[in-house]
Amino acid sequence: MAFAARPRLGGGRGRGATGEGDLGARQAIFPRRVRVAAAPEQAQVAVLGASGYTGAEITRLLALHPRINVRAITSERSAGQPFRTTFPHLRESFFKSESEDATMNLTLTKVEDVEWDQVDSVFCCLPHGTTQEIIAGLPQSKKVVDLSADFRLKDVDVYAQWYGAAHKAPDLQREAVYGLTEFKRQEVASARLVANPGCYPTSIQLPLVPLLDAGLILPEDIIIDAKSGVSGAGRGAKQSNLYCEIAEGMNSYGITSHRHVPEVEQQLDEVSKSGPVRISFTPHLMPFSRGMQSTMYVKMAAGATVADLRARLADQFQEETFVHVLPEGEIPHTRFVRGSNHCVIGVYEDRIEGRAIVISVIDNLVKGASGQALQNMNLMLGFPEDEGLMQIPMFP
Amino acid sequence: MAFAARPRLGGGRGRGATGEGDLGARQAIFPRRVRVAAAPEQAQVAVLGASGYTGAEITRLLALHPRINVRAITSERSAGQPFRTTFPHLRESFFKSESEDATMNLTLTKVEDVEWDQVDSVFCCLPHGTTQEIIAGLPQSKKVVDLSADFRLKDVDVYAQWYGAAHKAPDLQREAVYGLTEFKRQEVASARLVANPGCYPTSIQLPLVPLLDAGLILPEDIIIDAKSGVSGAGRGAKQSNLYCEIAEGMNSYGITSHRHVPEVEQQLDEVSKSGPVRISFTPHLMPFSRGMQSTMYVKMAAGATVADLRARLADQFQEETFVHVLPEGEIPHTRFVRGSNHCVIGVYEDRIEGRAIVISVIDNLVKGASGQALQNMNLMLGFPEDEGLMQIPMFP
Amino acid sequence: MAFAARPRLGGGRGRGATGEGDLGARQAIFPRRVRVAAAPEQAQVAVLGASGYTGAEITRLLALHPRINVRAITSERSAGQPFRTTFPHLRESFFKSESEDATMNLTLTKVEDVEWDQVDSVFCCLPHGTTQEIIAGLPQSKKVVDLSADFRLKDVDVYAQWYGAAHKAPDLQREAVYGLTEFKRQEVASARLVANPGCYPTSIQLPLVPLLDAGLILPEDIIIDAKSGVSGAGRGAKQSNLYCEIAEGMNSYGITSHRHVPEVEQQLDEVSKSGPVRISFTPHLMPFSRGMQSTMYVKMAAGATVADLRARLADQFQEETFVHVLPEGEIPHTRFVRGSNHCVIGVYEDRIEGRAIVISVIDNLVKGASGQALQNMNLMLGFPEDEGLMQIPMFP
Amino acid sequence: MAFAARPRLGGGRGRGATGEGDLGARQAIFPRRVRVAAAPEQAQVAVLGASGYTGAEITRLLALHPRINVRAITSERSAGQPFRTTFPHLRESFFKSESEDATMNLTLTKVEDVEWDQVDSVFCCLPHGTTQEIIAGLPQSKKVVDLSADFRLKDVDVYAQWYGAAHKAPDLQREAVYGLTEFKRQEVASARLVANPGCYPTSIQLPLVPLLDAGLILPEDIIIDAKSGVSGAGRGAKQSNLYCEIAEGMNSYGITSHRHVPEVEQQLDEVSKSGPVRISFTPHLMPFSRGMQSTMYVKMAAGATVADLRARLADQFQEETFVHVLPEGEIPHTRFVRGSNHCVIGVYEDRIEGRAIVISVIDNLVKGASGQALQNMNLMLGFPEDEGLMQIPMFP
Repeated sequence: MAFAARPRLGGGRGRGATGEGDLGARQAIFPRRVRVAAAPEQAQVAVLGASGYTGAEITRLLALHPRINVRAITSERSAGQPFRTTFPHLRESFFKSESEDATMNLTLTKVEDVEWDQVDSVFCCLPHGTTQEIIAGLPQSKKVVDLSADFRLKDVDVYAQWYGAAHKAPDLQREAVYGLTEFKRQEVASARLVANPGCYPTSIQLPLVPLLDAGLILPEDIIIDAKSGVSGAGRGAKQSNLYCEIAEGMNSYGITSHRHVPEVEQQLDEVSKSGPVRISFTPHLMPFSRGMQSTMYVKMAAGATVADLRARLADQFQEETFVHVLPEGEIPHTRFVRGSNHCVIGVYEDRIEGRAIVISVIDNLVKGASGQALQNMNLMLGFPEDEGLMQIPMFP
Repeated sequence: MAFAARPRLGGGRGRGATGEGDLGARQAIFPRRVRVAAAPEQAQVAVLGASGYTGAEITRLLALHPRINVRAITSERSAGQPFRTTFPHLRESFFKSESEDATMNLTLTKVEDVEWDQVDSVFCCLPHGTTQEIIAGLPQSKKVVDLSADFRLKDVDVYAQWYGAAHKAPDLQREAVYGLTEFKRQEVASARLVANPGCYPTSIQLPLVPLLDAGLILPEDIIIDAKSGVSGAGRGAKQSNLYCEIAEGMNSYGITSHRHVPEVEQQLDEVSKSGPVRISFTPHLMPFSRGMQSTMYVKMAAGATVADLRARLADQFQEETFVHVLPEGEIPHTRFVRGSNHCVIGVYEDRIEGRAIVISVIDNLVKGASGQALQNMNLMLGFPEDEGLMQIPMFP
Repeated sequence: MAFAARPRLGGGRGRGATGEGDLGARQAIFPRRVRVAAAPEQAQVAVLGASGYTGAEITRLLALHPRINVRAITSERSAGQPFRTTFPHLRESFFKSESEDATMNLTLTKVEDVEWDQVDSVFCCLPHGTTQEIIAGLPQSKKVVDLSADFRLKDVDVYAQWYGAAHKAPDLQREAVYGLTEFKRQEVASARLVANPGCYPTSIQLPLVPLLDAGLILPEDIIIDAKSGVSGAGRGAKQSNLYCEIAEGMNSYGITSHRHVPEVEQQLDEVSKSGPVRISFTPHLMPFSRGMQSTMYVKMAAGATVADLRARLADQFQEETFVHVLPEGEIPHTRFVRGSNHCVIGVYEDRIEGRAIVISVIDNLVKGASGQALQNMNLMLGFPEDEGLMQIPMFP
Repeated sequence: MAFAARPRLGGGRGRGATGEGDLGARQAIFPRRVRVAAAPEQAQVAVLGASGYTGAEITRLLALHPRINVRAITSERSAGQPFRTTFPHLRESFFKSESEDATMNLTLTKVEDVEWDQVDSVFCCLPHGTTQEIIAGLPQSKKVVDLSADFRLKDVDVYAQWYGAAHKAPDLQREAVYGLTEFKRQEVASARLVANPGCYPTSIQLPLVPLLDAGLILPEDIIIDAKSGVSGAGRGAKQSNLYCEIAEGMNSYGITSHRHVPEVEQQLDEVSKSGPVRISFTPHLMPFSRGMQSTMYVKMAAGATVADLRARLADQFQEETFVHVLPEGEIPHTRFVRGSNHCVIGVYEDRIEGRAIVISVIDNLVKGASGQALQNMNLMLGFPEDEGLMQIPMFP
């Protein structure tokens, strides 16, 4: 089977977790301060490319993390500026102690100016393409979670085909672990370099991987109509992302050619029982900042029912902290997960016989990017997987 | 063939139209003031249910119509109020002359208080279900465009099944003409009662009817992922449509059970070459007021190509004022048509062999409701079809 | 008195207007096709800087203008592109006839490539600073409405002080007429170069000029809290105007230092009865595309009452097509005027004795920019002032 | 002096706090688990009126509170429903342990069905007017924070005048403590009933109380232009709060008559050195869910400078966890505090001599309602004041 059966390094879904220390079950839940065997007391991290939205989000999450300290924050464009000028919602006064021991350096620097001996782990939020060489140039001892697409595709030829350039670090590529946490816990926990999944691929794989793996749906004729908030397009100053160009309307984009296609197909192939998967994938740009929904139209295997699909997913994610399967008749909204690391999934009968509709929602910046990155880093560091990640969704 | 081949009562697409009077080709274009043979000088209309969004929109459009005068405006809830209290953007001072001849009565009344001898035509914007009896009670001489769903389904048993109540005016139902204007011009022009199509069905039929009729796509496995602005849910005070419940997020709703399903299937069946059509239809509620996109995933007939589909649609709509087919590579945005009666269509190759993606966008309140209603009424009155409908889309 | 008493070149407010030709009172109203003595049959215009929002908006308005033809559209950045790529909501098929006589050239060019002999009038939508030299370089015979700030300030020293550079065309500056249409009709009608007012100044002057001129309010302690939609910031690709930076929040900006301050003070000084005006002006950036509200806190002259103020404004604008004064107790919303050239004004008692609150709303892109520009151009060309400007506000 | 000089029950600003237990300074910061002398181990609370936005928000905050357990949740309208149907973003799986000891009862009940012996404290989120009798009927032993306006006005005659009905619990009114936490810590800590301040009053008092108290600004001619997100209008199904009525526009409302006026004046009077304060207060409804800005135009006392004002505020709030004064030249955005209990303040020179502009931003649902309510309850229970309140603002 292609994915791990939920052995939790840091305990169960933030509920029944026990034996995690002397504070007792209740207190252990949020945030988890208890010790995991062999885990370091505290970790010191650098955030590379911190002036974009995923960089801001990882910093927001780390601000509440009891055992990860941000030691360096980089931005090529904004080096020299205090971080709060770039993201005033993260001004120093909102944070944990910058007190006597000055654990947080809040001035943005260039990557080459990071003092690497003060840092043991790295979140890399740099743009696609530039990331390979920078990670290749980091000291070998650092643990890295890379949020770009640079190490997600195992086959460097496929990478070259979709990204239009040869891969610059094929050795690192071979070493990289694809970090869809719920399916790759053991590999992630022992990895040095994790390729954090894309937002669309995360929202698609969470429901489809278990269904394909169980042979409940067919690998053919999978049609995915996906919708993403505009923060997924990044913080670059592009006319097409101006408020006036986005508000009060929507559009498809990248029809058949979005670069998340090969990532999804690679991962679905891994569990497909009957040959390669070829998906129809049409992303849509939504007039909201955060949130993502994938509406997936699938063919069920002969004899399978919608109830079978729902039961399989419910069983798969029963012990998970962050993935929730709705009972029959309830429908997920992206608002249910905004600002949180949660994913909510629903399954529905289609009017076309033999077809089912599967819907999943995530916050594209959290479970679709920075939240999953922290989930992976927690595993890599031996911390409880959900530490610093128990934000309740914000509504309204 | 199930739909008319573009004989235009009021002239061509607002371009080459000539010989329409002594003002010359240029001046004839917007709005068309020239006389159509046998058309009345001026028409006097009532708008029933004017306090909702479709009622407001028809009134906005009529405010600029050179030959239709609004004589009565009704609202059960707001009877007795001046119209501008209900819709201050339509205050009297923004309108055409209510001057000497006082053609416009801007106080809302109850339906029973309309002076019918002053009115020759009616736009009926009342809620589903209440409409049948009210229209049945109108003087026989009035021309009616009904914007509700009450007369769209030809089979009253299908109506009863989807709406949960027996039809109260089956005789009128038999008389009613389904008014997808571009396909039903001749029937509409001679109708007394027109059932104005739903918004989703309009956006779906405009591209799919010609493709099915030409046998270029198969009637099976048609998957429609549709997105609508929230004005489509009406102006009723419902918690689920509050700003805080809608902004910054989205959700599917009415999965497999939306009442536009039988309307779409009825109309697609009419042109299908190979048995009944059964669609997969999943609507999504969008955080914007106006706009609608249907993303349609279809199977092509053996031998057909995406270029064939695009060519068929381009040919079909070549002379149409309001329907536009994009060249290869361009993608419609709902913003392209906001506030206008236009529909923009694109066709794309799918990654799954034999499949194509068809996208159409409209403004759900205009071409999806009040604009098409006026287009139909123009035909029924013998006026140029696009009179009062040439609003340029508003962006940003 | 500093402003003209409403002599209308093109007739009254679109109501009682009579005797305007053989089409009769009703048909004369929208759009006005009737001849004004000495007016040309048709005008040929160029729009310079058409790829920004004000350029798009003037083009949207002109698309429906029966006597102005767009002959040239320029954009430095997008020269060579078809206009519909830049603004697909203005695609050729939505427009008036570009038919046989090909009156509209829809490809963007550079300014130097305009064929000036085909053009007799110019809308200049270029950025502040670059405009002076370009207008100075135009053939002397062309009528120009400039939408930039370059010719608004009469005193070139004040210009230099607020814009940080010497004025490059002081002779033209002397010639320029400040085009707040409702107050400057006669000057505008005979002008060759009109400086179109800023959006904030328009919303402020419409109510405050008559009140100051009548001595009903004091020139001191005028506090203006103004709110603008983000389209006022232009279409340049700036991070601060991205959807994610604007949506779901607001902020003040340019406190005390906004460049519309000297423009407002210059114009208020012109009518002030007791020495120079010095305003407090704080603009706020709103999370919507179009719309502007100025909330003005003023001191009334001894003996004056709120009723006096309201009566003065009602009297001032009684015959105006585009300016409306609300009765006591009604409050303007920016939504009431969206997409239209209207301004709605309300006056309210303050709780602080001797103070009144004056509120005005406009669409910053229409009455605050392109609509007023067209209003001015109509006057300059001898066309009815409201021709092509009778769009009904769009709501929702 | 009218307000306390920052004695913190639970330690300093979440920074230098030391000696709070054996976990060390760093771990003590968020959330504070350490014991305060005499504080109970755990508190059991009821949330009355939990189906509105403030009820949802207090529940969101409590979900992460390590020592407060929600035992009862009431809603008159939705009694009998599971809480997650009402607020699916708060579904049980997102919460802290509902495990073995089942501390959380997630079904909504009527107030009369609460088992009061299981509850020792109450958050009352009921509508204005109904609250007095309900609180009067609660067992005397319960600590109550009331989020309605029912106990904010000390003078029951003023209450009757603004709310149009006699006060039904004048004895309780005498007992109630007005809970602007930063100014009333000692009174709150020993109170049984706290009247939680309104959102506008909170945003106004935080800067103006210290400035008036220090005699740096005059009590006359205080002009407040305030802007609020629409969640402040509640979750009731009102047409005026529908998405389509709010999006893409704004408006003033309740000019001079908003019920927060007497609350603000009562509290400013308390510190005014020279007679009663009479404010000009104009609220504006914004097209966003959360956020509030008050832009305040004040007259400085003779000799006072903007630097003096800023310094006074900086000094006042230096040790505060939740109130931040910006350095010269920086401007607060509502986005800086969204989802958090923070308030950010800026002070600016006005162009009118002797005047200053003071700006404050809060999240109306957090510091303006539920966050401050929890801050007060923490004090009443002897818990650290910021426990469960250290959410980092969410952006974008």
